[in-house]
Amino acid sequence: MSPESTTSAPGFAEIRTRVRYAETDQMGVVYHANYLVWMEMARTELCRVRGFRYRDIERDDQLRLAVAEVSCRYRAPARYDDEIVAKAWVAHAHPRMVTFAYEIRHELTGEVFATGETRHIMIDFNGRPVKIPPKYFSLFGLAP
Amino acid sequence: MSPESTTSAPGFAEIRTRVRYAETDQMGVVYHANYLVWMEMARTELCRVRGFRYRDIERDDQLRLAVAEVSCRYRAPARYDDEIVAKAWVAHAHPRMVTFAYEIRHELTGEVFATGETRHIMIDFNGRPVKIPPKYFSLFGLAP
Amino acid sequence: MSPESTTSAPGFAEIRTRVRYAETDQMGVVYHANYLVWMEMARTELCRVRGFRYRDIERDDQLRLAVAEVSCRYRAPARYDDEIVAKAWVAHAHPRMVTFAYEIRHELTGEVFATGETRHIMIDFNGRPVKIPPKYFSLFGLAP
Amino acid sequence: MSPESTTSAPGFAEIRTRVRYAETDQMGVVYHANYLVWMEMARTELCRVRGFRYRDIERDDQLRLAVAEVSCRYRAPARYDDEIVAKAWVAHAHPRMVTFAYEIRHELTGEVFATGETRHIMIDFNGRPVKIPPKYFSLFGLAP
Repeated sequence: MSPESTTSAPGFAEIRTRVRYAETDQMGVVYHANYLVWMEMARTELCRVRGFRYRDIERDDQLRLAVAEVSCRYRAPARYDDEIVAKAWVAHAHPRMVTFAYEIRHELTGEVFATGETRHIMIDFNGRPVKIPPKYFSLFGLAP
Repeated sequence: MSPESTTSAPGFAEIRTRVRYAETDQMGVVYHANYLVWMEMARTELCRVRGFRYRDIERDDQLRLAVAEVSCRYRAPARYDDEIVAKAWVAHAHPRMVTFAYEIRHELTGEVFATGETRHIMIDFNGRPVKIPPKYFSLFGLAP
Repeated sequence: MSPESTTSAPGFAEIRTRVRYAETDQMGVVYHANYLVWMEMARTELCRVRGFRYRDIERDDQLRLAVAEVSCRYRAPARYDDEIVAKAWVAHAHPRMVTFAYEIRHELTGEVFATGETRHIMIDFNGRPVKIPPKYFSLFGLAP
Repeated sequence: MSPESTTSAPGFAEIRTRVRYAETDQMGVVYHANYLVWMEMARTELCRVRGFRYRDIERDDQLRLAVAEVSCRYRAPARYDDEIVAKAWVAHAHPRMVTFAYEIRHELTGEVFATGETRHIMIDFNGRPVKIPPKYFSLFGLAP
């Protein structure tokens, strides 16, 4: 049984989590950097849905999907104890760059808290960019 | 539907979550301060199991369960993507002080990652300690 | 004496800090969301340099500079114990929206780790957008 | 120039930092787990004062000072933008276990926010406990 309930389809993945007290700031809303963490959780889940555990990519192939760029637009503030859904999908991909897109919304009301994108390159453990190996093409929706 | 799957009984509450990349440090294990966050999640869940939403305690009664002391003993390191269970229960309570105890373990293997305790006092929004109101006695297992 | 050494001029502000172990992840580099925290520190310092303490803006005027959008481009990874400089300046401003720009670099080598921007609106404590009061025009470089 | 101003003597080390917005929670005070991060910063500084960079211990000797136990007592809440001092010293040491003690106070008023202790063992990169090598005896105040 998965620790977070998830919904998935070939095209996207969703994770559900509850806002932690630690994630709030003194305005009584979620501190803005934490949305990037939820995006990362949804991105990990998308890998899993498509048959890859991100931890295995790092461990077995000594590769990492490094974040080259992130953007996030905040539309409404999430609050402590809110049940949120973070959804991820591949927006664009080619063998040297992958862009994921995200939507974070309230589980119950559907209100959208934030949308965002992250751009990634694959690097080896020395930090050098590499072409994405063909075994991962299906993960990113690249043509074989 | 709850975002994290939970198990509960009158005496304790458990939350399940998956270790986030953000929670690791450069040794490849969970950074030690993050276990306190998981304890807080289990404590919130224990409130819920007993009929109280902690956010309502803060909002409706303008009270807060401030952390007066924390201790944690680390037994084995949790790692990225591990499915962990955090369990909380009331260890001791009297009208001016409540002690929660915790166990954090691996969901699948049962290995115990950490055990801990937190001691709390109730304070008002000016930071002044108050006696726990009778309406919360059942939450903490205090005799009515 | 200020806890972090700073450099400042009317046009910009800089804070210096040292990468914390807590800020690294299991790849041995700084977790990407933490750069947003350093940006926030430089933004706070820019307010101070221009004669305003951000905490007073919140407390005295019950206003907040909410983050509406953030973007960050990662150029090189910062590592544990690196001495970093985060520099902030106002990129654009009008009475309903302010954009700050940032550069984060290595203190000693000058290598640029990241650049970014944040867009902000002023909101009151009910979350409603407000026009920036004239008393803050000088903070954002707005014409009086 | 060091990014944080520090005070040191053979017996202890202090770091100064300013409370970040990210470190607060919705009660308007510092989230309790963050005090452990400040302790870690002071511990790192104590290593430096005694002639060792903790990053070099990890990199050169493939050793790590793993946290086996932590305790913290919260006496007064630190708030956003407060200038805080975290002081660390060795409380006890023997070749298989080192205990550090900490005090966190307000830079200007001297008010004590928290006191704590952490117990550590040295482990290799496979997670196995090792005896502290003699070259580090001076770091921990162990007799040669």
